[in-house]
Amino acid sequence: MRPDAKAASNNALGLLRPVKGEEGAIDAIGSEGDMRATVIHGPRDVRFEEWPEPRIVEPTDAIIRIAAACVCGSDLWPYRGLQPLNGATPMGHEYCGFVEDVGGDVRNVKPGQFVVGSFASSDNTCAHCQHGYQSSCVHREFLSGAQAPYFRVPLADGTLVPTPERPDDSMIPALLTASDVLGTGWFAADAANVRPGATVVVVGDGAVGLLGVLSARQMGAERIIAMSRHPSRQKLAREFGATDIVAERGEEGAARIKELTGGIGADSVLECVGTQDAMLQSIAAARPGGAVGFVGVPHGVSIDGAGLFFAHVRLHGGPAPVRRYLPHLIDLVLQGAIDPGRVFDLVLPLEQVAEGYAAMDDRRAIKALLQP
Amino acid sequence: MRPDAKAASNNALGLLRPVKGEEGAIDAIGSEGDMRATVIHGPRDVRFEEWPEPRIVEPTDAIIRIAAACVCGSDLWPYRGLQPLNGATPMGHEYCGFVEDVGGDVRNVKPGQFVVGSFASSDNTCAHCQHGYQSSCVHREFLSGAQAPYFRVPLADGTLVPTPERPDDSMIPALLTASDVLGTGWFAADAANVRPGATVVVVGDGAVGLLGVLSARQMGAERIIAMSRHPSRQKLAREFGATDIVAERGEEGAARIKELTGGIGADSVLECVGTQDAMLQSIAAARPGGAVGFVGVPHGVSIDGAGLFFAHVRLHGGPAPVRRYLPHLIDLVLQGAIDPGRVFDLVLPLEQVAEGYAAMDDRRAIKALLQP
Repeated sequence: MRPDAKAASNNALGLLRPVKGEEGAIDAIGSEGDMRATVIHGPRDVRFEEWPEPRIVEPTDAIIRIAAACVCGSDLWPYRGLQPLNGATPMGHEYCGFVEDVGGDVRNVKPGQFVVGSFASSDNTCAHCQHGYQSSCVHREFLSGAQAPYFRVPLADGTLVPTPERPDDSMIPALLTASDVLGTGWFAADAANVRPGATVVVVGDGAVGLLGVLSARQMGAERIIAMSRHPSRQKLAREFGATDIVAERGEEGAARIKELTGGIGADSVLECVGTQDAMLQSIAAARPGGAVGFVGVPHGVSIDGAGLFFAHVRLHGGPAPVRRYLPHLIDLVLQGAIDPGRVFDLVLPLEQVAEGYAAMDDRRAIKALLQP
Repeated sequence: MRPDAKAASNNALGLLRPVKGEEGAIDAIGSEGDMRATVIHGPRDVRFEEWPEPRIVEPTDAIIRIAAACVCGSDLWPYRGLQPLNGATPMGHEYCGFVEDVGGDVRNVKPGQFVVGSFASSDNTCAHCQHGYQSSCVHREFLSGAQAPYFRVPLADGTLVPTPERPDDSMIPALLTASDVLGTGWFAADAANVRPGATVVVVGDGAVGLLGVLSARQMGAERIIAMSRHPSRQKLAREFGATDIVAERGEEGAARIKELTGGIGADSVLECVGTQDAMLQSIAAARPGGAVGFVGVPHGVSIDGAGLFFAHVRLHGGPAPVRRYLPHLIDLVLQGAIDPGRVFDLVLPLEQVAEGYAAMDDRRAIKALLQP
């Protein structure tokens, strides 16, 4: 255990709060055992309101005091009414912060440590985990409720990765991205088989797509074509390593990719949207034997078997096995090799979370960071 | 050029005929320039009838005197009326034999050589060919007309592979399989990422599936589960290397695979059918991170994007790039390492080709070899 000596004294970014024992009520309006957290009630109805503070339920749980959370592109599916809700639902699954409390069976993380965790819990021991597919762990839960001051993480030993020491506050946005958006962009590139020297296309200029550009660059891609029609996103894509920008979409977009690649198509295509158009565009942009890594949660996507057969394109996707990549991604961030935190172009106090959703929905913001 | 010295004297299997100059009319009922060949006119209407004898058209062509041809599982799609026909169509795309004549630009093969070729022509020089996807060559043609005494092969230099010397007649059935059915089973295993020690499932007990079993075995798979309910095919599957047989199909079949693999699923699944049921069964049989190689030409197959996403399964298929594998497969056959010719359980004179189709359609035969 590394005592978190600086925690109480360093509150520069508002990312840190005293440990629970040192404070009185957690929130001015919260009654004992309650906090305020982000809850969605229906389309475009996100509220920051009272919600029970999480407690240890299983001996394998940990409670995290959130240093920073954020709004995920996938949070916009229910926000836009495109994914059914089952009543009021606490939101948020991207998180990093300090271990506040652990259950009796937790061995790998200790109170006071700074941790980053996957959006999906995993025991990290089952056969799927051992194969590197922790997001299909036999004990997987898709977590929710991290847009809050405190967050319960099941299977803490297999889900959380502690940093070697307490990171500087300036690193927190970048470390936060490893929890999902960076890990997902990285998986898209990995699933699309990006290799040194590869020609890569990235479909989708959201935060996942932009970090897909960064990931492909890290993996040694020589040419990275970002498909985007938004000047600010095009700019960040270039800064992350994109060598070309294509503004056209659909068939026109695929034709432009063929043109840019001498009629051949791309070695690797990262599908970071989740719509039918994006999937078809991605398959059409890849060369025979090339690969599409798809990480946008598919909504209404159907792939014609004969079309895929004659395209000769490889397809691999799913919920990113972030836990597999976390140690490496944390290292890259702490070494200063990458700065994925630049996808956050809006920083809000947690209580203004609804504005974070609205800004991302309107595409006024690429990604909103939330500070408890 | 290796002179085909033994050709005229060795006719033991009826596989060889004198070179054209030595015979009078090619066929008793053929007029000059005609031969009899296999032509499909409609569902279940396969005729062996007069058809123009092929001639060199392009300077890159070769004319092959067929030593043996056969009926492909994919020939049954139009035979069963499941694939539209555009008038009378010469059939057959699996072939090996002697080079009879070549165009002026052909450099790699010479008259008299014994050659095996892919069912798809390729220049073997374009970017797709260089990436190993010769069956998506920019100059690809899907060949047809090999169930005949003579066959025109375009792009001979990039499509045909000569054997080091004239093979023994006993090798001809095995060499013939390399032209498509073995190469396709091999691609299924390769696309399904079969590795030493892997657990493999093969869906489909036709000749492609059976040779998928053989291929997986050659690639070092430890466990090979063949899905088959036909005793004779089960037996051949075991002889080719299957360790387990599963007779159940669909959801029941996938459940049995899960049971046999300790709840995990297979590393690699070879989909060798081309129907919706087979595709769903294949995806369901694979573990997260596992791969499905699909080589059955999809007929009415549609893959749900969200289902594939949460299955976490890799998908790769298409027309097998046989040309990539031909040199290796020919070597394996000539070394006696494999005997894929055992899939032929019916040998017919070419003129009885209609019976070959009928026997395969009724599943009385696994695969019919045709001798001109």
